[in-house]
Amino acid sequence: MASLESEFYQPLSEAIATGDETQIRAAAATFNAADLGDYVEANPGPDDGVRLLRALPVQQSARVFGYIGPTIQTVIADQLPTPDLAELVTAMSSDERADFFNILDEDRQHTLLQSLASKEREDLRRLAGFAAGTAGALMSSEYATIHTGMTASEAINLLRNTAPEKETIYHAYVIDSDQKLVGAVSLRDLITAMPGTPVDNLVATGLITARTDTPQEEVARLIARYDLLALPVVDHDQRLVGIVTYDDAMDVAEAEATEDIHKGATVGKLDTRLKNATPFSLYRSRVHWLVILVFANIFTGAGITYFEETISEHMALLFFMPLLVASAGNAGAQSATLMVRGMATGDVSAADWARLLGRETLVAGALGVTMAAAVMMVGILRAGPEIAAVVAITMIIVVMTGSLIGMLLPFLLDKLRIDPATASMPLITTIADVSGVLIYFSVATALLGLS
Amino acid sequence: MASLESEFYQPLSEAIATGDETQIRAAAATFNAADLGDYVEANPGPDDGVRLLRALPVQQSARVFGYIGPTIQTVIADQLPTPDLAELVTAMSSDERADFFNILDEDRQHTLLQSLASKEREDLRRLAGFAAGTAGALMSSEYATIHTGMTASEAINLLRNTAPEKETIYHAYVIDSDQKLVGAVSLRDLITAMPGTPVDNLVATGLITARTDTPQEEVARLIARYDLLALPVVDHDQRLVGIVTYDDAMDVAEAEATEDIHKGATVGKLDTRLKNATPFSLYRSRVHWLVILVFANIFTGAGITYFEETISEHMALLFFMPLLVASAGNAGAQSATLMVRGMATGDVSAADWARLLGRETLVAGALGVTMAAAVMMVGILRAGPEIAAVVAITMIIVVMTGSLIGMLLPFLLDKLRIDPATASMPLITTIADVSGVLIYFSVATALLGLS
Repeated sequence: MASLESEFYQPLSEAIATGDETQIRAAAATFNAADLGDYVEANPGPDDGVRLLRALPVQQSARVFGYIGPTIQTVIADQLPTPDLAELVTAMSSDERADFFNILDEDRQHTLLQSLASKEREDLRRLAGFAAGTAGALMSSEYATIHTGMTASEAINLLRNTAPEKETIYHAYVIDSDQKLVGAVSLRDLITAMPGTPVDNLVATGLITARTDTPQEEVARLIARYDLLALPVVDHDQRLVGIVTYDDAMDVAEAEATEDIHKGATVGKLDTRLKNATPFSLYRSRVHWLVILVFANIFTGAGITYFEETISEHMALLFFMPLLVASAGNAGAQSATLMVRGMATGDVSAADWARLLGRETLVAGALGVTMAAAVMMVGILRAGPEIAAVVAITMIIVVMTGSLIGMLLPFLLDKLRIDPATASMPLITTIADVSGVLIYFSVATALLGLS
Repeated sequence: MASLESEFYQPLSEAIATGDETQIRAAAATFNAADLGDYVEANPGPDDGVRLLRALPVQQSARVFGYIGPTIQTVIADQLPTPDLAELVTAMSSDERADFFNILDEDRQHTLLQSLASKEREDLRRLAGFAAGTAGALMSSEYATIHTGMTASEAINLLRNTAPEKETIYHAYVIDSDQKLVGAVSLRDLITAMPGTPVDNLVATGLITARTDTPQEEVARLIARYDLLALPVVDHDQRLVGIVTYDDAMDVAEAEATEDIHKGATVGKLDTRLKNATPFSLYRSRVHWLVILVFANIFTGAGITYFEETISEHMALLFFMPLLVASAGNAGAQSATLMVRGMATGDVSAADWARLLGRETLVAGALGVTMAAAVMMVGILRAGPEIAAVVAITMIIVVMTGSLIGMLLPFLLDKLRIDPATASMPLITTIADVSGVLIYFSVATALLGLS
């Protein structure tokens, strides 16, 4: 792909190399903003990506800049004179502008604010003030509003005249004289209605809304669940303060899924695409949990040591240890994964635990019996009926223990306000390992005895 | 939540209990289609969900029906007389109609086709023919088209008149006299242009398109990457045959992420929401891999047995075994998870493996050394310097081995056309377990010797 990619961008990089603005614009016209953003991200040098951004019309340049990750955005910002940067920032959409502003250091923020027009300055101050990960930080202020009392044709005219500044004009929000959100009308309804129809007859009320402090996962979930193009964000007085559009919700949903998947394997947050991550940032994202888990596994070692006598008398038991311990861990990981993902997608809620416990017991029991049957044969062939019985009994107990811990732990973590995705898998594997070893050798000591 | 949920739906269930159509419609008017769909899914009985569906106006009923999962959809279909079902199906959007049609048995399909009007019949035959999981199966035929040569005002009038039948009129596709896709115009551009402007001057060409056989993950990725409202689908002659809208793409992206997360813990595909899954379907989705992994772990047991002599002479070695084996598995799971998710989101492509190998070696080496240092102390305190040295050396080797296997295996599976998400984790854990045991006791035998 590396070679395919350079081939894909060849006309662009050749045009950039000439340094001629007209040629660069012509070459860039055949690419999408997202693709141009990728190019600049991979080639942010002054004679490469930066030259491209400076050659493009500022609207296009701002769109491309919005597709670039935070690290490279700051690299580029450092190469631009403040007036050029201010012009670029002014042309960005308000939500991307606020995100960019928040990654700058204080000095740069101060200089930038001073060189912006007062309208953008106020807007930026307002949007940049919301905590990361909330609806306030995601929302844009480029929504279209119409007032109660207008007619359909007045509304269409208003939308037509303000269209260039808005993210979307296909849904306009209807507000009353106190700026409170009344409802929404779609452009579709406006243009299919008779021109003189009052907007009040067309407005859809009872909108799904978010508050500025609604978590971004919840925002993405609402947009996906109700198939919304945009979700209005209101303050505590029900006044409309912004909208979150579906494309931002898709980005949030993808980032959240990636983060949850990474957490499942104890990988910390990466603030860039995997391809561009530095060795150090990867090291940092991984070392933390690996070291914690090393020490957690000492308990398993201690469990084995405790039963040293039983083991040295029945060395054949060791053969089945990995298999039993792994089964407990695997069954636990399955249950925990189902629950954690179910909670993340809103499919399962905290109060469901009791209802799901019965089902889990049934499923885990059936799984335990199936697996006991599977290892029974191996046990008899390899170590005789006595050890086979120990292994089969242990299997049923550990699969059930692992499954029930895996199912219940995410609910417990949620109750303790710890994100279940972070800690579930390693905790479960470790608990399953320790309990697997203890159960196995306890059963063995009880049934086989010590001479 | 169970009690919160019944409270939320209380006005609705009370209205349904009365059996009075006007009351039911009035109560349903305060709920969204998605919420009504959830209600019917949870209460599909003839005097409950089915009564609700039959009381609603058919357009609303069809929208609600579209939010219901396939299992309950068939349960409901079995309770409706064919003419009512045909009316409902006619009112559904074409993509949801085709999905529903595909889950019916052949007899029902046949009866249903016969009772549909010829337009819907042809449309259904065409859409239902595409393989599940492709753009063809996702696409809808309710898109708006305009022909080259029209003016802006003619185009607006056309859109206004056809609006009720279309999924979206905010993007209209421009086709030439051969039905070939030329480009798109947005309603925004049409209404802001002078009325007499030729559409040909407003059309955006070079659209991102999909083919009918493009996999659905790719479709979702394109829509997310380019922030599209809808993705046009063309046949091999570049003729426009359908569109996939952003809301379907969000559903696909969520379902794919859930499937990948489940696969990571060896859970098979569930065809319903977790909350509603039956014990048997959960058993079936989990038992397969659990049993396979039991047998895979026999290799680890065999590895231990092979070194029985070394172990019985140095029982202290057993204490460190779980810790070393788990570290190899954890490091491998981290690398594999990063790669599998990177490949799923299109962040990493198959040709990147060589470039990423160097970075992985560096990161894994650093992780191995850190963890060796961490266990060194424990080793000295617990078992003396000799065994501590064995443990530290083993740690570096197993963390590097695990990480490199975890990084490379997804690429290998991808090359063999096996979905890396399915098999990576269990394979890696098992390989890491076996290799961890072999490396550990080999190093121990070499350094400590046998008396």
